[in-house]
Amino acid sequence: MQKKIPEAAIRRLPVYLRVLDELIEDGVEVTSSADLAGRTGLSSEQIRKDLAYFGAFGTRGVGYDTCLLNRRIKKILGLTHPAKVALVGVGNLGTALIRYNLAQPKDIHITAAFDADPRKVGFRLGELEVQDPERMEQVIRSQGIKMAVLTVPAQEAQLVAEQLAVAGVEAILNFSPVKLKVPGVYVQDVDLTIELQSLAYYTNGAEAAVSGKV
Amino acid sequence: MQKKIPEAAIRRLPVYLRVLDELIEDGVEVTSSADLAGRTGLSSEQIRKDLAYFGAFGTRGVGYDTCLLNRRIKKILGLTHPAKVALVGVGNLGTALIRYNLAQPKDIHITAAFDADPRKVGFRLGELEVQDPERMEQVIRSQGIKMAVLTVPAQEAQLVAEQLAVAGVEAILNFSPVKLKVPGVYVQDVDLTIELQSLAYYTNGAEAAVSGKV
Repeated sequence: MQKKIPEAAIRRLPVYLRVLDELIEDGVEVTSSADLAGRTGLSSEQIRKDLAYFGAFGTRGVGYDTCLLNRRIKKILGLTHPAKVALVGVGNLGTALIRYNLAQPKDIHITAAFDADPRKVGFRLGELEVQDPERMEQVIRSQGIKMAVLTVPAQEAQLVAEQLAVAGVEAILNFSPVKLKVPGVYVQDVDLTIELQSLAYYTNGAEAAVSGKV
Repeated sequence: MQKKIPEAAIRRLPVYLRVLDELIEDGVEVTSSADLAGRTGLSSEQIRKDLAYFGAFGTRGVGYDTCLLNRRIKKILGLTHPAKVALVGVGNLGTALIRYNLAQPKDIHITAAFDADPRKVGFRLGELEVQDPERMEQVIRSQGIKMAVLTVPAQEAQLVAEQLAVAGVEAILNFSPVKLKVPGVYVQDVDLTIELQSLAYYTNGAEAAVSGKV
């Protein structure tokens, strides 16, 4: 059993992946923590620490092999094969997320979408057709989907999350403003209020308060 | 000058704030790092470390005063007064974020919305009316807005971000899949692909790879 990797480090790995993809595309074979720092806005120290969790130490004076590091991070994240995702709740937010995902060339695809509103069932977004939630368990099982995006109204979120768990989903990206309780399922909340509240820190008034001026 | 506070810690403060709000509402006057851990899913150690950055140490055997801690975190985040936010780009995502924000009772409000599409200008969402971006600088200045949410298409994001900076915005929550370069402005990216990629780690295949089973 290896050391537990902090969530914050896991959340930075896709950022490294994106930069490494760019470097590989540009034909760059070797990079350094200083170079990665310049491209990600993170500190070199932070980057070395994050990568060391996974046994990627680089070579002093040489740096990190971009292809090797890219493959290693993909393996850690389980992204060596394309990953399938189900989305439940095709309102404004769900529609925006599907459109955005369809336009991305990444190896992570929303391959099933569900909405309880009968007027939305059958609606097409690119190649994706909105389906009746009654078909959810069957579709998720047959496609082997392990991840879901939850964009339903707050009052439906807990029930839908439980149904997703029963269908075999192991990780949920939750946009509903509800604290979900689904044993055995990893839930990552995305909450506009929380994002905005932490953003407020970076406006002048708040920073002045911390440095003791207010 | 105080020690630099890690971004990850800043991003957890609103989570503490939410839990403290609930505790205060329930009449709870004192809490512990263990109690906060149970309610947030973070470790007690992490919580003590985060709060210590701000000089909130609690009293051994007694704990943290909920009201005091709540006020202190609000002060750190600059949320002692209601904060105003501008949103640019009223597509599916922008509309969803505005609707969600209007429904929240929090002290952080989207008070101005802009879209370059003339068919959207004048459209009302609750009390909010979509305005022409030509009015952006004037409206942002007159309302004293320091934060913005950017939900425009990728190719417009950099230009709009620069205009926001000129108007006095100091922090941007960026939903456009573009790395913005705006000196002096704090940019927090929200990227579905990155969220999904880190989520993939928490499905079984990936965790098995890290613990050496694959």
